[in-house]
Amino acid sequence: MKALVYHGPGEKVWEDVPDPRIEHPTDVVVQVDTTTICGTDLHILKGDVPSVQPGRILGHEAVGTITEVGSAVSTLAVGDRVIVSCIKSCGKCMFCKKGVYAHCLGDEGASGIGWVFGHLIDGTQAEYVRVPYAENSVYRVPDGVTDEQAVMLSDILPTGFEIGVQYGRVKPGDVVAIVGVGPVGLAATMTAGLYGPSRIIALDPDANRRNTAIAFGASDAVDPREADWKEQVLALTDGWGVDVAIEAVGVPATFRMCTDIVRPGGTVANIGVHGRPVELPIQDLWIHNISISMGLVNTNTTEMLLKLVAQGRLASEKFATHRFSLDNMIEAYDVFGRAAETKALKVVITR
Amino acid sequence: MKALVYHGPGEKVWEDVPDPRIEHPTDVVVQVDTTTICGTDLHILKGDVPSVQPGRILGHEAVGTITEVGSAVSTLAVGDRVIVSCIKSCGKCMFCKKGVYAHCLGDEGASGIGWVFGHLIDGTQAEYVRVPYAENSVYRVPDGVTDEQAVMLSDILPTGFEIGVQYGRVKPGDVVAIVGVGPVGLAATMTAGLYGPSRIIALDPDANRRNTAIAFGASDAVDPREADWKEQVLALTDGWGVDVAIEAVGVPATFRMCTDIVRPGGTVANIGVHGRPVELPIQDLWIHNISISMGLVNTNTTEMLLKLVAQGRLASEKFATHRFSLDNMIEAYDVFGRAAETKALKVVITR
Amino acid sequence: MKALVYHGPGEKVWEDVPDPRIEHPTDVVVQVDTTTICGTDLHILKGDVPSVQPGRILGHEAVGTITEVGSAVSTLAVGDRVIVSCIKSCGKCMFCKKGVYAHCLGDEGASGIGWVFGHLIDGTQAEYVRVPYAENSVYRVPDGVTDEQAVMLSDILPTGFEIGVQYGRVKPGDVVAIVGVGPVGLAATMTAGLYGPSRIIALDPDANRRNTAIAFGASDAVDPREADWKEQVLALTDGWGVDVAIEAVGVPATFRMCTDIVRPGGTVANIGVHGRPVELPIQDLWIHNISISMGLVNTNTTEMLLKLVAQGRLASEKFATHRFSLDNMIEAYDVFGRAAETKALKVVITR
Amino acid sequence: MKALVYHGPGEKVWEDVPDPRIEHPTDVVVQVDTTTICGTDLHILKGDVPSVQPGRILGHEAVGTITEVGSAVSTLAVGDRVIVSCIKSCGKCMFCKKGVYAHCLGDEGASGIGWVFGHLIDGTQAEYVRVPYAENSVYRVPDGVTDEQAVMLSDILPTGFEIGVQYGRVKPGDVVAIVGVGPVGLAATMTAGLYGPSRIIALDPDANRRNTAIAFGASDAVDPREADWKEQVLALTDGWGVDVAIEAVGVPATFRMCTDIVRPGGTVANIGVHGRPVELPIQDLWIHNISISMGLVNTNTTEMLLKLVAQGRLASEKFATHRFSLDNMIEAYDVFGRAAETKALKVVITR
Repeated sequence: MKALVYHGPGEKVWEDVPDPRIEHPTDVVVQVDTTTICGTDLHILKGDVPSVQPGRILGHEAVGTITEVGSAVSTLAVGDRVIVSCIKSCGKCMFCKKGVYAHCLGDEGASGIGWVFGHLIDGTQAEYVRVPYAENSVYRVPDGVTDEQAVMLSDILPTGFEIGVQYGRVKPGDVVAIVGVGPVGLAATMTAGLYGPSRIIALDPDANRRNTAIAFGASDAVDPREADWKEQVLALTDGWGVDVAIEAVGVPATFRMCTDIVRPGGTVANIGVHGRPVELPIQDLWIHNISISMGLVNTNTTEMLLKLVAQGRLASEKFATHRFSLDNMIEAYDVFGRAAETKALKVVITR
Repeated sequence: MKALVYHGPGEKVWEDVPDPRIEHPTDVVVQVDTTTICGTDLHILKGDVPSVQPGRILGHEAVGTITEVGSAVSTLAVGDRVIVSCIKSCGKCMFCKKGVYAHCLGDEGASGIGWVFGHLIDGTQAEYVRVPYAENSVYRVPDGVTDEQAVMLSDILPTGFEIGVQYGRVKPGDVVAIVGVGPVGLAATMTAGLYGPSRIIALDPDANRRNTAIAFGASDAVDPREADWKEQVLALTDGWGVDVAIEAVGVPATFRMCTDIVRPGGTVANIGVHGRPVELPIQDLWIHNISISMGLVNTNTTEMLLKLVAQGRLASEKFATHRFSLDNMIEAYDVFGRAAETKALKVVITR
Repeated sequence: MKALVYHGPGEKVWEDVPDPRIEHPTDVVVQVDTTTICGTDLHILKGDVPSVQPGRILGHEAVGTITEVGSAVSTLAVGDRVIVSCIKSCGKCMFCKKGVYAHCLGDEGASGIGWVFGHLIDGTQAEYVRVPYAENSVYRVPDGVTDEQAVMLSDILPTGFEIGVQYGRVKPGDVVAIVGVGPVGLAATMTAGLYGPSRIIALDPDANRRNTAIAFGASDAVDPREADWKEQVLALTDGWGVDVAIEAVGVPATFRMCTDIVRPGGTVANIGVHGRPVELPIQDLWIHNISISMGLVNTNTTEMLLKLVAQGRLASEKFATHRFSLDNMIEAYDVFGRAAETKALKVVITR
Repeated sequence: MKALVYHGPGEKVWEDVPDPRIEHPTDVVVQVDTTTICGTDLHILKGDVPSVQPGRILGHEAVGTITEVGSAVSTLAVGDRVIVSCIKSCGKCMFCKKGVYAHCLGDEGASGIGWVFGHLIDGTQAEYVRVPYAENSVYRVPDGVTDEQAVMLSDILPTGFEIGVQYGRVKPGDVVAIVGVGPVGLAATMTAGLYGPSRIIALDPDANRRNTAIAFGASDAVDPREADWKEQVLALTDGWGVDVAIEAVGVPATFRMCTDIVRPGGTVANIGVHGRPVELPIQDLWIHNISISMGLVNTNTTEMLLKLVAQGRLASEKFATHRFSLDNMIEAYDVFGRAAETKALKVVITR
């Protein structure tokens, strides 16, 4: 088959590789009908993720059709249309039993990390992909939900919802600020509405993204390059700050923005993938009764979110801005890599 | 009356001052029968808390007898024996209604901080003290509970329990580490048992304190000066770290110890009062699905803890190591100030 | 002033009575600008509520203007426009501190019941009303929120939300059934959306009400007089039943409908005011891992709901179907009393 | 092998049957080293559980040694000493993913009920037992935990804890009443301490059981045959009733006792297996803001409880009152069946 293979920093090739096959009785093989590219894939290509070895097929998001099932798989069948989750879950380790699939111990890899596709095992930017622990790692797509809607549930919607909205403990009536409204910040914007906030404030220097955030459900948008950005945010609260500040960029400055605007008793939920430490001004913050969360998505809400997409309550298709065929994978990367210019959110790549 | 007055950094005098009187209809005046000294009082005397102005009577912990009640006070009477909580609560602002008394807005001071005694208004190291919003800020002491038991509920037990144990979300079966077992760390040690942990690990370089922690309910003690302290802690878990790490010192090194030993999905609860920023290695931590909490005590569990003391389920009297009369206030400070040497936990100062 | 006075079963008169005045330092007096009628008022008039004595002014919902404040009231002023909550809260008893205002002990009455207006003290269907514990029992109305919007927050919206939606533990993705969509069932319908359900199914024999429910946010409506009503409901789930069944009628048959359609692990939230026992088929239900809740509204979400109304996120004005002046109180009762025929939801009665 | 076979109401025989064998790749076979008898087994023998067909091997509790593993089992090995849980969990259905193993859909049986041993498939009162979905249905026993301690984790301790204590939402400081202190009520008594209650009140007409309850951690005991039993209970509270009432008998009278003594805002947790409906006086209760829970154990806390047993924090061995060998199974039933007379709690039956 063809697949996008990582050959070290900056090097990726769409090339012929052996077809995947069942390796364990709990595996399935999925024909990739639709896949997409994540910011993490760009990080890998920059060489920022040394655990990804050359020769690895990239990608951790897909919707596809099961072509083969392992001998212990009883609830899935050849022909099933499924979402391949970015996180595999063995369903039986202590982390999975508590819903912390992000740290699945599974025998495979046994690394304590649920993210394996395009990382520790071959990924989804390929014609076929082997999925371990398939019964806990793929989700059947109901009729009426398109591939384009469904592929947003591989990673981005659960990430925004679980790590932003749920870890942030958004409650009805809350004022929520989302610092950075790229794809994952927009996923938090769209799903924050599931807990009935009174306001969702999007902060981003890019005017196009601020406008997009409004279209995704934000009530207000603030440009953080303006000198009085903080006053603008506080003016949208009762003056005491936001209940929940969601960090969706991953640099010290945006993390600090969050601790600057959160009210006493509030929460900072970090989604951003950081490359260096942040300084926490705990000499001021200790007395503020705040909590700060962070984490890799567990994808334990995927089925629930899929139900909401099926009911028309979450318009996940809004993330799709550009479309390509698998053979144009390299071009898809180029467009996604220049997102500020191309205004790409998610590029949809289909068979 | 006599009171301990702050006259600027390093200066405190036990001297004559005017008696307090009712200023608002919701006030009471309390004769101080028992008071104690907190580490925060030492910080104030070092000049670390600039919001405390010279002329202020110090102290925020007391048990006493009501001598006068304001015109709007209907549920308290002269002669009632009460705990004066370190936090006043107006019971009617948005923070108090949510249980976040630490940030009570009350008209008095309107500072958004519930800690007022010995800080923004005169405190409890005196023969009498005026208590604002008395019906929500004092707690009647049942017969059978001694003053010495009760005074530990003014601050230290609620602080260890709320900010350490509850913010840390301790659950049955958890392994809990407590970094620093001075008085507040011991309060967390004693009250962690209310949520059924499987182990409580005390970490402190002082052998006497480690032994005391065992007497207060810790199952294990580790000396963090030993090179393999971290391995020792992990060996008391399943190898993945503790469920909850409670910081009860307030310096960067102990905060870092907590993030080093917490398991994926776990919680770091900071009780320590910090004087400078900490560096958060979020480039490593973001993927660990942890949360970090911090705060000033709300004292919204004081009545509950008092019930447990009354039932003999919490032996709060264990904190009392030295006893003085009010007239020996200066000596009490001296003994408490040299705690490492005197082995003082809480000094009890009575009328 | 004029007021609607209860003179025993079936007897109500709009008549002259003495003006209310401040009785306690924590009271205010409110000029009633807008009031409404509740189903409970009809029950009282039938003689179903013996704790209501002849001579009592009826009504427990109002929006008005403060005309007098007690000496201990510091956060409210003459001229403030406020919602009078159907529940008074003293803010200082053990129930109020836990948010269970429904069982406020307050000195006044000391009955352990927070509902006092038009019940144990004079109510709001009058030109003026005295409000005890005013700082915890009224809510200032922000500019931009009309009286008609605000009066729905006295009782009906908090009741549907707290006792139906919150006690029912509605979560994102849930399928919620609401059995009975009169005013309080519609309040649950409207506010269920604050927790992101995938479906809201309204059950009511009245076609007009079913249509109204759809307009208030229900996704589906079922007529329970149809023989296969239960199959229709289950077909809207995965076949295992609804996550949450909300009872909003108050008779054994509708209660039973709820236990019949709730899935294993689900919740039945009873809002209905019942007049006789229900038989619980616990020989079948014990194994279903369900919970059943019930209660009087606490109104501890009033401020939060008001924020959502102010932000345009809850269209509370939709409940207002008929409008009267205070002088036409008797006519208003007549229209409200024939709701099936007049299609009245809430009648709005203004100064 | 030998096994205890049900041959219809009143008929049980310890007889030769074929050895169990692996049927599915996720099965294991366990040699039963220790088993016990549950009250449910007595119910089955009375003919009260028609879903149990003649020919069925009884029993759903065991500790044993794995003798064979299926081809998909990777985390268990021959020779492992394990607890066989009374509930099987497939780990992959929607109920298991939410922790509601009680309603596991697993392909096997697909009945929506997790309790299969000695019910829908052959049970543990035998020399060997086949365990489906073994990796999610057995728990490895650590060294230092005896079989006698471990077998109490098959059913009784998780049942008392999950359905009594957790569903009852016991919190620190609570007053908990346990109505009926047979084995399962005692399990609730012992595990209630994991949430720090201030009092645990045992109610039982049998003096021996009341004394046993005190030995298991109850603070108080009341004989419900005394005319003033309710007053005695209320006198142990602040007069408003208990926070949590746990029903552990299963008849209407004891259920009613629970709703009679629970305070406003409290919880009734039903553990009892009921044979007929109860009348719920909802005309009085609707206003009390209570909730009522019920259910079959999920056993999702088994590993956690096992950790506490291993740490010496739960003395599960206290349940063992009589010991037998497998060959004396019939005698063991006889002793257990006359528990009032023999004072049997759990009879331990070993290889």
